[in-house]
Amino acid sequence: MELDRQDNAAPAPVPPPRRRFLARGAASLAAAGGAVSGAASAADNLPPNVPQWMRAPGAGFLNPPYGQPSPFEKHVVRKLPEQPAAFPTATRTPLQSLFGTTTPNGLFFERHHAGVPAIDPDQHRLMVHGLVDRPLLLTMKDLLRFPAVSRSHFIECSGNSMAEFKAPGKGTVQDIHGLLSGAEWTGVRLADVLREAGLQPSASWILAEGADAAAMTRSIPLAKALDDALLAYGQNGEMLRPEQGYPLRLLLPGYEGNMNIKWLRRLKVGDAPFQTREETSKYTDLMPDGTARQFTFVMGVKSVITTPSARQVLDGHGFREIGGLAWSGHGRIARVEVSLDGGRRWQEAALDGPVQPRALTRFRFPWVWTGQEAILQSRAVDEAGNVQPTRAALIASDGQNSIYHYNAIQSWKVASNGEVSNVHV
Amino acid sequence: MELDRQDNAAPAPVPPPRRRFLARGAASLAAAGGAVSGAASAADNLPPNVPQWMRAPGAGFLNPPYGQPSPFEKHVVRKLPEQPAAFPTATRTPLQSLFGTTTPNGLFFERHHAGVPAIDPDQHRLMVHGLVDRPLLLTMKDLLRFPAVSRSHFIECSGNSMAEFKAPGKGTVQDIHGLLSGAEWTGVRLADVLREAGLQPSASWILAEGADAAAMTRSIPLAKALDDALLAYGQNGEMLRPEQGYPLRLLLPGYEGNMNIKWLRRLKVGDAPFQTREETSKYTDLMPDGTARQFTFVMGVKSVITTPSARQVLDGHGFREIGGLAWSGHGRIARVEVSLDGGRRWQEAALDGPVQPRALTRFRFPWVWTGQEAILQSRAVDEAGNVQPTRAALIASDGQNSIYHYNAIQSWKVASNGEVSNVHV
Repeated sequence: MELDRQDNAAPAPVPPPRRRFLARGAASLAAAGGAVSGAASAADNLPPNVPQWMRAPGAGFLNPPYGQPSPFEKHVVRKLPEQPAAFPTATRTPLQSLFGTTTPNGLFFERHHAGVPAIDPDQHRLMVHGLVDRPLLLTMKDLLRFPAVSRSHFIECSGNSMAEFKAPGKGTVQDIHGLLSGAEWTGVRLADVLREAGLQPSASWILAEGADAAAMTRSIPLAKALDDALLAYGQNGEMLRPEQGYPLRLLLPGYEGNMNIKWLRRLKVGDAPFQTREETSKYTDLMPDGTARQFTFVMGVKSVITTPSARQVLDGHGFREIGGLAWSGHGRIARVEVSLDGGRRWQEAALDGPVQPRALTRFRFPWVWTGQEAILQSRAVDEAGNVQPTRAALIASDGQNSIYHYNAIQSWKVASNGEVSNVHV
Repeated sequence: MELDRQDNAAPAPVPPPRRRFLARGAASLAAAGGAVSGAASAADNLPPNVPQWMRAPGAGFLNPPYGQPSPFEKHVVRKLPEQPAAFPTATRTPLQSLFGTTTPNGLFFERHHAGVPAIDPDQHRLMVHGLVDRPLLLTMKDLLRFPAVSRSHFIECSGNSMAEFKAPGKGTVQDIHGLLSGAEWTGVRLADVLREAGLQPSASWILAEGADAAAMTRSIPLAKALDDALLAYGQNGEMLRPEQGYPLRLLLPGYEGNMNIKWLRRLKVGDAPFQTREETSKYTDLMPDGTARQFTFVMGVKSVITTPSARQVLDGHGFREIGGLAWSGHGRIARVEVSLDGGRRWQEAALDGPVQPRALTRFRFPWVWTGQEAILQSRAVDEAGNVQPTRAALIASDGQNSIYHYNAIQSWKVASNGEVSNVHV
C-alpha cells in the first residue's frame, strides 16, 4: 500500500455528516458489487466475485522461517539520500509508511562510520577500566545474567534534518527527517555494571568505544551513565541487528544518536572528557560568532507530520486524519498542537498512550479537506516546558552554520490539487 | 547468542556480595587480558588484542535495504512442532530467545487453515452487510482514511499448550507454549465502521470471513465489536505480514487466536450466531460429561517462565534473573508470583511497565542458584481477580478431553547439574 500517493483524481464532494469518514462515499454494494477482484473461471462453480486467492490454498509454513514483508510493500525500505554524498553515511527510515511508535528493526535508520562489523558474540568482550576499583572483562553471557530492563526510546541522529537550515529539501519526509527511529530496548543498567566495577571518587566521565573499524568514541557524563543509560542487547524483542550494534550497544536515552555507541567494547572511567575526534572536529555546533558549542548532548523537542507529507497527493476531498510523531530528549511529550494555516491558529492534537519518556509519541488530528490550500504544521511541547521553535526562531538563536540539532517546526504546503510539498514559511 | 545453553561447566562458587551479578566472577583484566579475540597480524601495527572486525571497514549500507538479523542468530526462528502432524497447522514463536514484550513480525506465530493467500491490497475489499442501514464495500484506501488507533495486544491460539492436558511435552518453551505472540497493532475501530454502516435494532452478532481458501469464518458478539475490536492493517509499525492477514485482519483483544480473522473480506451483521464449522465441529471444549462448551471466547489468565526453561542448561551457580511473560484476555495483569519449590512458597515478581490490558507483560525475579534442585513456577493474577490455576485444578474442572484453553501453571525442574526440564507436579 502507498498512502495518498496513488492518484490525483478529481475531488469528490464533501460527504454527508452521517458518513463523514468515507471521503469518496465508499461504494455501495449495489453500485460496486462486481468490484471484488478475481476473474471467474467457467470451469468452477464459484460465484464470479470470489477472488483468485480464495480458489486454492496459499503458501505453506516456514516460507521463510524468519518472516518477511509482503512483496506489495517492497517500496517500504530504508534509503540513502536522494543526492548521495561521495561517501554515503546513513540510510533513512520511511516515516511516511509507518504506524504507531515502533520502527521495525529492518527499517531502523543506519549511521555508521566504518561499515557494519560482523561480530561473533561469543568472542565479543566489554572491558570496564580506568577509575574503578575492579576492572572487568565481560562476556555477553555475563551481561545476559545481569538484571534486565526493557524500555521504549527514540534514537535521532544529531544531523537529522540538517539541510533544512539552508533550504527546503525536495524529498519525502523519509529524505528530510528519516534519521529517526524508535524501539523497545532491552539491556543491563549501566549503573549496575559500574557498581560491580566500583567507581573511584574522582570518576566523572566515561569514554565509550565501539568495536568497528572506526573505533567510534565519545565521552559520556557520569550522571547520565548512572541515570537511565543501558547496555542494550535487545531491540524490539530480539537481539540487536548488526547495523544497530550487535551484540551490544550503549543506549543514552534522548542523547545524540552518535553517542549511543554501537558494537560497544570498552568503557573507560575518567575524571574529564576525553576530547575524542567525534567531539572536537565533529559533532560540535558552529555558532554565528564563530565559536562552537561542545557537548550538546540532548536532542531537543521536535515533531513532524508524516501523513500527509511531502510528495504525497491527497486522494480526494473529505475526512482524513493528520498524523505524525513527536519526541524530546528532555522527557515526555506534554502536548502537540497542529496548525492548518501556517501557524496563525493552533489546535491541540490527540496523543496515543501510554506516553513514555524520551520515546516516540504518535499524535492525531482530524481534518476535513475541502480543496483549500493549506500549510500544515505541528508543534510539540515537552514535560520540561520546552517548545519546538519556528525555523526563524531557531536560526535567530543558532544561525545557519551548524548542521546539528535542527528541531524547527516543519511546514507542509497542500496545494488545491492535493499535492503536498516542503516549504519554509 | 543462545541463553543458558552453551555449556555445562563445573559450577563456580557463589560470588561475593559486592559482585553478586557476576556469576563466574567475570575475568579480571590481569587474568584475561588476552581473551579479546582476533589474531594479530605481524604485518600491521595494531596491538594483538584488536579483534578482526576492527581491522577493516565492515559491510556497507542497504545490504539489504530491509534489514535482517545477524547470521549468529539464525537459530532464532519460528518452527513446526517437534513431532509434526501429517498436515502441520502452525509454527511457534521462540519465546526462550526473546526480550521485552514485542514479538518481531518475522517471529510472530502462524496458524492458518489453507495457507497464506497472496493478496493485492489494491484489489482487496471489505464488505459490510446484513442488518445495516447502508451496506458498504470498502477499499484499503477507504480504511486508511478512518481515524486510526494503535494498541499493544497479545494473540494466543486457543490450542496453545494443548499437549499439556495429557503429559509433559519434551520440547522447549517454544514447542510447548509458542502459539503466543504480542505486537503493537494499528487499525480502525470496528465500532467506527459499524457506525458508518448503521446498525439495525436487532443486530447482535457479526460474521467475520477471511479471504483465504478456507474462507475462515467466526461469529463475533456485537458487544465485543463495539468495545475494543480493531480492523487492523498495521503490526509493529508496518503493514501486516502476509501470514498475519495482509492487508487486513480482525483484532479481538484477548479472544481466541482463530477469531482474529485474517485476510478479512466480509462482515455480516445478524441477530444470532452463525454456527460456522469453526464454532460447531471445531473450537468447542469437550467436557468430562460429554457436553461441549461453545463460544468460549476469552483466553484465560496465564504465565510462563521463559528463562530458564526446558532444555536449557544453567551455565554455573550464582545470580541469574528468572524472567517470563504473563497475559490475560480479561484485562491487565495485576501481579505475578514465582515459586522456587513447586508451589509451596510464592514470592511476588517485578512487572515491566507500562502494563497494558490484554497485552504481554514481562515479569522478573532475582535468583541465586547454589546448585540445589528446584521446581520453578509462575502464577499470574489479572485485574479481574482471575488466578492462573494449577494443572490439577484445571483438570478437575475441565477434564482432559478438551484441547483448548489450557492455562495451568507451568513447572520447570532444575536438576542439580543445571538441566531444565518440563514436569507435571
